[in-house]
Amino acid sequence: MLKPLLALSALTAAVPAIAQTAPAAPTAADAAASDWQPIPDNELLVMTLRGGHQVFIRLAPRYAPAHVANIRKLAEARWWDGTSVYRVQDNYVAQWGGGDDKTTLPPTVIENPPAEYEWSRYDGVTNFARADPYAVKTGHSADGWPLATDGKTSWLTHCYGMVGVARDLAPSTGSGAELYTVIGHAPRHLDRNIAIVGRVVEGIQWLSALPRGGGSLGVYENPAERVPILSARLASQLPEDERPHFQVRATDNERFAAWLSERENRKPPFFTMPAGGADICNAQAPIRRAP
Amino acid sequence: MLKPLLALSALTAAVPAIAQTAPAAPTAADAAASDWQPIPDNELLVMTLRGGHQVFIRLAPRYAPAHVANIRKLAEARWWDGTSVYRVQDNYVAQWGGGDDKTTLPPTVIENPPAEYEWSRYDGVTNFARADPYAVKTGHSADGWPLATDGKTSWLTHCYGMVGVARDLAPSTGSGAELYTVIGHAPRHLDRNIAIVGRVVEGIQWLSALPRGGGSLGVYENPAERVPILSARLASQLPEDERPHFQVRATDNERFAAWLSERENRKPPFFTMPAGGADICNAQAPIRRAP
Repeated sequence: MLKPLLALSALTAAVPAIAQTAPAAPTAADAAASDWQPIPDNELLVMTLRGGHQVFIRLAPRYAPAHVANIRKLAEARWWDGTSVYRVQDNYVAQWGGGDDKTTLPPTVIENPPAEYEWSRYDGVTNFARADPYAVKTGHSADGWPLATDGKTSWLTHCYGMVGVARDLAPSTGSGAELYTVIGHAPRHLDRNIAIVGRVVEGIQWLSALPRGGGSLGVYENPAERVPILSARLASQLPEDERPHFQVRATDNERFAAWLSERENRKPPFFTMPAGGADICNAQAPIRRAP
Repeated sequence: MLKPLLALSALTAAVPAIAQTAPAAPTAADAAASDWQPIPDNELLVMTLRGGHQVFIRLAPRYAPAHVANIRKLAEARWWDGTSVYRVQDNYVAQWGGGDDKTTLPPTVIENPPAEYEWSRYDGVTNFARADPYAVKTGHSADGWPLATDGKTSWLTHCYGMVGVARDLAPSTGSGAELYTVIGHAPRHLDRNIAIVGRVVEGIQWLSALPRGGGSLGVYENPAERVPILSARLASQLPEDERPHFQVRATDNERFAAWLSERENRKPPFFTMPAGGADICNAQAPIRRAP
């Protein structure tokens, strides 16, 4: 693995050095081929921004079924086409969708679904179970969602790249027409207050590197600053040969446990003091393009 | 306080609504005038990037005296002028400085200072003491630095906006000529492995919103992509009437304790489920321009 904060001379030297090296020996932390699970076409939202830049979002229908049902209807109605990214607040969120120039929802969309913020079950597998200031236990579902529990209920955690549903004041839950993703330190105080519906799995830089909005809470003051959304589609709406395919690494196996242990105890020659732990947002399950 | 994830109609409506509202009543969480402590001119680094965009960095001489001494010498020698931001890696760091086109340090700069990664004392005041997966206790120094301890040593934490010293493989410690700041979720596994020398107190968006580098580890592949640093100066090097003045909120008082409690237990009408805790990187001491 390349080392994270090398000075530039070493950073640029690292690439040819790696290229000359024989492939790394297999380790207990390597995924087996069967660990890579496909993300279904109707659980992947493809948002295309100005310039053709694409953001790929894995949806979480098991955890937020009513909100994801809305999101599917909005995508099928091509409702987001022509809306925009209208808010980018540093160390917080990028937010997009309906906004003030498109307020009428397709008739089948439920304006205020139930508050899908937490559940009585806890789906986390036992490979990882760290307490943190927000939960007595955090971990991963078998299919890679980050979870937390207080021992009674459980919820998805607001990690970098997680996608949530903007809403008005409680008890509004938001329809899903306006979404945001986290582009800074995990704002875990939002957990259990907002519906999380997915995770950006590729292309987040097209949101996280946008200019910050100069208005209150990062809203672009001038509508001309907004970044147009050309389209947002489920992969299942695309012609079969145009569908992107992603895979998530299964977490319910000893290989993933070994991978977590490596993240918690990084090694020399760069690291000399292993952390001995990791927070759930520094241990997100890997997702990759299908080879 | 404005609410964080309102849908756009409510976001834009919130501004006039606030403007029409009488000033909020004083609360126990308000700072007293005396809580705002000046940041000395020789503890503030002003980095000016292409376009005149300025990044202001509070230095931490108490925690990393040898590295900060180097940084002061580099600033006084105008050594960074003409170097660049050469690496921006999403959800990780922006990195700048010497790089490969300026490798000779001023003769008074120590190339490998001692490893100022941790200390035997713990300076945290008692207002906040949360355990997390990386530490048995986290908290703030009286003058606002984020700290963690394992009960034996203590260290500064890699929160969003903290500034560290890039280095080669251990036992290198880096001179300070190449620096980075965190632009994503806190990479706390770097704690105790790298010298932290400061915190960006204003202007981080000129680093965090830069295009991500396409090369390995976010290095800009084409040198033309690098963002020129026009100058980097201590505020004390500037003419007196051009010096920026910042203040940090003192943490060793009951008003700050009340402020923390409010962050840990956010209230209706937006929040319905208080977190009951906060991690140190979501509870950074406020810093402001001197009024």
